[in-house]
Amino acid sequence: MSDTVVVGLDIGGTSTRAAAVTLDGVRLGTGRAGGGNPTSHGADRAAGELLAALRAALAGVDPARVRAGCIGLAGAGRLLADPQGRAAFDRAWSDAGLRCPYAVHGDALVAYASGTAAPDGTVLIAGTGAIAAQVRDLRLDRVADGHGWLLGDAGSGFWLGREAVRRLLADLDRAATPGELARRVLAELTGSPEVAERFRTTADAVVQAVTRRPPVELARLAPLVVTAAREGEPVATSLITEAAALLAESVSRIRPAGATDPVVLGGGLLTGDTPLAEAVRPELARRWPDAPLCTAGDGAAAAAWLAARDLPEVTDPTALHALLLPAAA
Amino acid sequence: MSDTVVVGLDIGGTSTRAAAVTLDGVRLGTGRAGGGNPTSHGADRAAGELLAALRAALAGVDPARVRAGCIGLAGAGRLLADPQGRAAFDRAWSDAGLRCPYAVHGDALVAYASGTAAPDGTVLIAGTGAIAAQVRDLRLDRVADGHGWLLGDAGSGFWLGREAVRRLLADLDRAATPGELARRVLAELTGSPEVAERFRTTADAVVQAVTRRPPVELARLAPLVVTAAREGEPVATSLITEAAALLAESVSRIRPAGATDPVVLGGGLLTGDTPLAEAVRPELARRWPDAPLCTAGDGAAAAAWLAARDLPEVTDPTALHALLLPAAA
Repeated sequence: MSDTVVVGLDIGGTSTRAAAVTLDGVRLGTGRAGGGNPTSHGADRAAGELLAALRAALAGVDPARVRAGCIGLAGAGRLLADPQGRAAFDRAWSDAGLRCPYAVHGDALVAYASGTAAPDGTVLIAGTGAIAAQVRDLRLDRVADGHGWLLGDAGSGFWLGREAVRRLLADLDRAATPGELARRVLAELTGSPEVAERFRTTADAVVQAVTRRPPVELARLAPLVVTAAREGEPVATSLITEAAALLAESVSRIRPAGATDPVVLGGGLLTGDTPLAEAVRPELARRWPDAPLCTAGDGAAAAAWLAARDLPEVTDPTALHALLLPAAA
Repeated sequence: MSDTVVVGLDIGGTSTRAAAVTLDGVRLGTGRAGGGNPTSHGADRAAGELLAALRAALAGVDPARVRAGCIGLAGAGRLLADPQGRAAFDRAWSDAGLRCPYAVHGDALVAYASGTAAPDGTVLIAGTGAIAAQVRDLRLDRVADGHGWLLGDAGSGFWLGREAVRRLLADLDRAATPGELARRVLAELTGSPEVAERFRTTADAVVQAVTRRPPVELARLAPLVVTAAREGEPVATSLITEAAALLAESVSRIRPAGATDPVVLGGGLLTGDTPLAEAVRPELARRWPDAPLCTAGDGAAAAAWLAARDLPEVTDPTALHALLLPAAA
């Protein structure tokens, strides 16, 4: 077994995951802590979760063996531009006993690397938000969407939730009996799937229930759409189809026609056999028939791989990728 | 000249207008004051503007001659449900020396009545927001949209402004040189129509400029779309066409196929020879070929007419409408 260890971290809004691996692909430890997005939670709290996840992954590992590290997180650019945030991360790194340098990358790059070892390709992520990015030599290049819920995130969980409410409101405006998805959305928002005698009363209650919360929480309704689409509910199915077309359109803004390098699908709505992944795959295959379509996997392992591949003793990064992320092979 | 006087008020977000008229159609006075929407400005301030406009309209008129009044405002239902707000309006009414009762109606009904004397019809309003309503016997009946910028207002000024920014962001994502409308939107938001060497830098600056302000202020960009559409700019023209289709769709949610009663167009984007009015007229004419299309006029005069028509001595309300609102005839 190689003496050299690398650590990778995937810091997301709801959880932080760490992995410590050897250069021959042995996983020595993993760690998990709370959400640590420095933009939404503040850099100090993010650094605290980073430290907790690191310590768990390094339990029983001599930190002097760790030669490289990589952190993937949303808003990486903002962290790097913020001296205080960077200092908080440096302290956590050093408090974990680590003396080696670490790199910070955007979560989109780490998601990409979790799905393929190819240095060039495209990543498409749909979760609460939605973003597509070109990857060139394992660096993020051009980006499409990711503009946030007010101006973008087309085809995202926010988009699905908002459109589900808009379809419900259209039913109520028309004084039409809401369909199955609309009834579930109504129940989630108002506590009851029943419509008042005056349809407008229910429509106003729906609008009030939504506007009481931060707009981005409309994404909480996306699982209702996903579940209903799995059951073949027609409105949910059409929303998923529309979202898939919007996501493919975002990709087409940055990915050249005829490209044959891989496309990695990531984010909660595209990882696994979700209805949105099933709908977006043919959209992408139609536009780029010769491109492999991959699925994002273990972000912490991918971050560890990104850290390892710059070490001189890693002569075959593709082989190491296959060991660390076998599902992507 | 009739001794009997009626007063009408049209309370909007940016101005309050009052008119005092006789039952034979003579305008005795008009008044104007600041915006008085009780929902956005508070009922006390709205009542203050109401009083200022009333006093101006009644200068030189013995208030004992006033036999009826009508106030049109957005959020009329909320005012009527709020005892404190209602009390503030009662005080302003009495402080103006008025002893007669007054009615409160939604601004949509007053806009409708400013365009036609027909008791039944449809009103479509597009300003910052967008709403359509059926009118039955000069009461608001079913309503479509008006659900606010987050969930509705399809085809409104907010919608035009947001879509103009989204088209600009799509250009920047594609690394395409922005067109004329996009350049104007960019200049309005960032102070310069020039794109940075890295397109994403400009896209991020655009998103930040928008998210620094309340979302509804996207409606401030609508005049850029209107002006560019007048000049034939292709993106602006396509946004106006799309907005017109959305507005007509909202009307179709509530207006029966084959209806022949009038449709009144109101709100800043539809009053006069605006590009949106020009685009929405054929959409409506296609769906309801036998319906007269009218344009909203003087809201204060329409409110006065609504007050007058319930008085027993008004035997021909249509004739009075023609005197008070000659443009609608």
